[in-house]
Amino acid sequence: MANDTQRWNELAAQIAVDSIRATTAAGSGHPTSSMSCAHLLAVLFADHLRFDVKDPAYRASDRFVLSKGHAAPALYAVLKAAGAFDDEMLLSLRKQGSPLQGHPAPIPELPWVDVATGSLGQGLAVGLGMALAMRIDGTEANVWVMLGDSEMAEGSVWEAMEATAFHEAGNVTAIVDLNRLGQRGATMHGWNSDVFRDRAEAFGWSAIQIDGHNVDQIDRAYRDALADDRPTMIVARTQKGHGVSFLADQENWHGKAVPADRLDEALGELGGDRGVRCTPPTPPEVHVTSIRRDAGPTRPAYDGPVATRKAFGDTLAWLAATYDDVVVLDGEVGNSTYTEDAEAVAPERFFQLYIAEQCMIGVQTGLQALGKTAFAASFGAFLVRAADQIRMGAISRADLRLCGSHAGISIGEDGPSQMAVEDLAMFRALNGSTVLYPADGASAVSLVETMARLAGISYIRTTREATAKLYDADDTFPVGGSKTLAATEHDDITLIGAGITVHTCLAAHDILGADGVTARVIDCYSVKPIDAATLRRAMGDTGALVVVEDHRVEGGLGDAVLDALAATGSLHGRVVKLGVTDVPGSATPEQLRVWAGIDAGSIAARARDVIAG
Amino acid sequence: MANDTQRWNELAAQIAVDSIRATTAAGSGHPTSSMSCAHLLAVLFADHLRFDVKDPAYRASDRFVLSKGHAAPALYAVLKAAGAFDDEMLLSLRKQGSPLQGHPAPIPELPWVDVATGSLGQGLAVGLGMALAMRIDGTEANVWVMLGDSEMAEGSVWEAMEATAFHEAGNVTAIVDLNRLGQRGATMHGWNSDVFRDRAEAFGWSAIQIDGHNVDQIDRAYRDALADDRPTMIVARTQKGHGVSFLADQENWHGKAVPADRLDEALGELGGDRGVRCTPPTPPEVHVTSIRRDAGPTRPAYDGPVATRKAFGDTLAWLAATYDDVVVLDGEVGNSTYTEDAEAVAPERFFQLYIAEQCMIGVQTGLQALGKTAFAASFGAFLVRAADQIRMGAISRADLRLCGSHAGISIGEDGPSQMAVEDLAMFRALNGSTVLYPADGASAVSLVETMARLAGISYIRTTREATAKLYDADDTFPVGGSKTLAATEHDDITLIGAGITVHTCLAAHDILGADGVTARVIDCYSVKPIDAATLRRAMGDTGALVVVEDHRVEGGLGDAVLDALAATGSLHGRVVKLGVTDVPGSATPEQLRVWAGIDAGSIAARARDVIAG
Repeated sequence: MANDTQRWNELAAQIAVDSIRATTAAGSGHPTSSMSCAHLLAVLFADHLRFDVKDPAYRASDRFVLSKGHAAPALYAVLKAAGAFDDEMLLSLRKQGSPLQGHPAPIPELPWVDVATGSLGQGLAVGLGMALAMRIDGTEANVWVMLGDSEMAEGSVWEAMEATAFHEAGNVTAIVDLNRLGQRGATMHGWNSDVFRDRAEAFGWSAIQIDGHNVDQIDRAYRDALADDRPTMIVARTQKGHGVSFLADQENWHGKAVPADRLDEALGELGGDRGVRCTPPTPPEVHVTSIRRDAGPTRPAYDGPVATRKAFGDTLAWLAATYDDVVVLDGEVGNSTYTEDAEAVAPERFFQLYIAEQCMIGVQTGLQALGKTAFAASFGAFLVRAADQIRMGAISRADLRLCGSHAGISIGEDGPSQMAVEDLAMFRALNGSTVLYPADGASAVSLVETMARLAGISYIRTTREATAKLYDADDTFPVGGSKTLAATEHDDITLIGAGITVHTCLAAHDILGADGVTARVIDCYSVKPIDAATLRRAMGDTGALVVVEDHRVEGGLGDAVLDALAATGSLHGRVVKLGVTDVPGSATPEQLRVWAGIDAGSIAARARDVIAG
Repeated sequence: MANDTQRWNELAAQIAVDSIRATTAAGSGHPTSSMSCAHLLAVLFADHLRFDVKDPAYRASDRFVLSKGHAAPALYAVLKAAGAFDDEMLLSLRKQGSPLQGHPAPIPELPWVDVATGSLGQGLAVGLGMALAMRIDGTEANVWVMLGDSEMAEGSVWEAMEATAFHEAGNVTAIVDLNRLGQRGATMHGWNSDVFRDRAEAFGWSAIQIDGHNVDQIDRAYRDALADDRPTMIVARTQKGHGVSFLADQENWHGKAVPADRLDEALGELGGDRGVRCTPPTPPEVHVTSIRRDAGPTRPAYDGPVATRKAFGDTLAWLAATYDDVVVLDGEVGNSTYTEDAEAVAPERFFQLYIAEQCMIGVQTGLQALGKTAFAASFGAFLVRAADQIRMGAISRADLRLCGSHAGISIGEDGPSQMAVEDLAMFRALNGSTVLYPADGASAVSLVETMARLAGISYIRTTREATAKLYDADDTFPVGGSKTLAATEHDDITLIGAGITVHTCLAAHDILGADGVTARVIDCYSVKPIDAATLRRAMGDTGALVVVEDHRVEGGLGDAVLDALAATGSLHGRVVKLGVTDVPGSATPEQLRVWAGIDAGSIAARARDVIAG
């Protein structure tokens, strides 16, 4: 035991030393926030976290998530000690091209990090997702999540607390580094660890309070957490900057590197650089396989009108029944989004997150980090609640498959709070995202099927109402493609829609046709990437495009069309955008489309104006 | 007492009856979710909520927030009973043009509603904001917030719980309508009200458990809540659809109107329509005034380089010292955004919300509902966390004055999690929003000063680094304007920037000038609305625009420029957008600008390519 104590303390000192060395070399960073958790990380990586540094992707390993991402130097330091990389790489921290960014991100050169952190309060939900993946895989691995005390103010933490207890994920341990100091001074609760114990218990967790610099207490707490059937929160009272007198528990040192001229003094107090190494325990051997079954529902096909949200649900049920790596998440609206169809065929891979969209996306990020093909759905409006988690998903290079239902003002009577009219803007702006918006059942089926194979963030927008059949079950809908639904050699104008507005554009086409005006009609079911070639051809052929969307005029289909045209050469002609430009109220879907000017009559009238010049 | 009991029960029955009548007339809506809270509302409006239905804006009134916005019919029913409007208006529910939308929204015709609700979990933070406004005004009014049990899963509720206790807003009472059933079945905790009592107490609140259909228990709970110095949560066990046997505590009735052919049966069980009226207690007479002082800091002016974030802080401090209706909110980054400067001069109107951005925006919404000129600031990246609250702010027609600092990749070494590169897309897409992005100190001062007078959602984006002085302190920066910083009669190309990229465009102008290429340079400090006339003139004069932004290429300045050109006539010429197209890493600001191709050299090179065709 004395030997262990010394070994852990030596490793902790090394982590503190390397956190200081790396940040001083970088000239910026968070050494003091790293030093507060040095002992916690040392004991964890030395003797509890079962993982093989040479095979970080191994599915049966334990997982560690550094929710307090600004303590990245401590994580890098312990990974160096575990042999993941050398000191030269450690000292490349925060420099251009280094895999060691200011906050951890899972880039290919850093396979020991599963998800990006740095926007606070997100790690615990990710950890729950990992725990649920482990449950599906039957690996009996554990998840350790380290949180800072400042981030405990984020509601997302308490969503994850609730969901972890509800899903009885006893293999999750949260370690709260209670270092008393936030970015700008004292936190709300300081070292009052009782507060967090009480809250943890009220949220269905076990709680243990310890001195976070006492390695024996830490070791015992880790053992107790593993032995406990419930998820356990370890509330560790620590000092920011522990181990260096001019840093320890001092204000005004957050996010500041030790100046070079005080480096020796700081390292000296910690006993200097000692090159300590550690070898985490070996994970158990478990073989995880994916199986394809073909006994469930078959690929959906529709003879008549169907709501694209229903087609989404049918397709998801088919995928979940067929592929056992498909996992489905709901935010208590599964009877609206139709994820309940997947629940019916694969209940063991369906997880109810209740009305906690941030947690839902965090769980999804954790599931995909462990190889699951995870879909999540809610009203498009309510996915906005998780905008920051989705943003971090893009930085995590996560494969997040999202469905936003009840899109646009076409939801009708429920009113604006339930209407997604800014969702396309949010999803289009994300790196590497794919944004899909089918107009009928067959295209919805095909696009959902495609999403299961797409990397990155993919978003499908579905409609509440049933829409008419446009395509056959064997039509193909490649990402980046479009469908031209009406075209002649001498079209006067082009009408461009997606989703519900494909139907209003088609009706406008008929109205115009009765007046002798020929309109081309394009279904841009792939909003991002968009079919620039077809759009450019239409601009050349007809000289005028009317883009119609059930979304705000900013950031959605209209902007995507303009962007595509601008990116592919000179602009010439008119591009008119029709979309939502005011706050809607309650009314029928058709009344609201007339109000917004995206109904057939309004489109036809606007097209006539454009042609008249 | 027996008389009160009967009076309250009659009013409750009337609320239930009217909730059913209105939703059946509409053919949609949430009668059962309204019936569960009928008794709670009846007692509150009859005898506790001090407000004058004829003067709903009166600042010294108590405030009621229906966080569970889908129970709108119950709110409308009790407002009708209080004489706010007549039965004809009640029965216009959810119809086009009716002020009575599916979820409450504060439109001019419905002055009894202060904020929009319907995206769950947002009401309590709004209530805290109102309570803080009351504290500033010294009105001693009270805030009552009604929540549903499903929305208790939203983390935003727990952010608000924490902040309400921390700010000792003992005049806030939360009423939880524990009706056991969510949209798709049972909630996590059913009628286990102990869970919520324990959590409330762990978050520093008092808690009272009652039968939510027992009006005497309700009355006593309200009295106890008012008597308690701490904020109080009343956990009321109720039945969804209470009072009608085929609805009460039944699944599959969420969000469904009673069919017309069962209307008589339902109303019959409730004793039928009885036209009960109520008169809420009269609020005390308190005169609230706003005072202008001129003893604090003066309008800032800069002779040299300054970071726009610092100019924001300096200006905010000046405004806060001068106008006593200015309130400033921080999300524990006040030493980065420089809201700490305002804290220093007006600490009684500065509120620390810690790292809980959703709560910060909710509080801001509550403050502005009571007439405060509220500013809130965080890193631009972290405002994304509150995207849904900001979206609801737009539906609330709220005046939210927001600053997002550390914009873009120009933040440098901290890495992508801290970089706002999608914020312009989010803010541009909101109804009626104003999006500002100053490039120097003088423009930042002027735009912050302007924001204090702007209606709706206004967003100013600030930069971490100091930037060179471009303008004088007496230059004007109208919303929707721009500044042309370089122009000749024969410009070869136009470079358009905002914020930091104004400086890289100016440097590119000089590089090109050395090669004999004359570039026009436009500072689009007003991204929305944007100066379409100047942009169109530039397209006409130079035939080619290069738009440069420290933001994703989607949804930001480039899309705004294209949108403005498309909206004002035919397009002709090239528009090239330069912005972020991949996930950044850590590096110096200048290295990252080179990486993204938005530095002077890249801009000049791209401009040359465009001119070469």
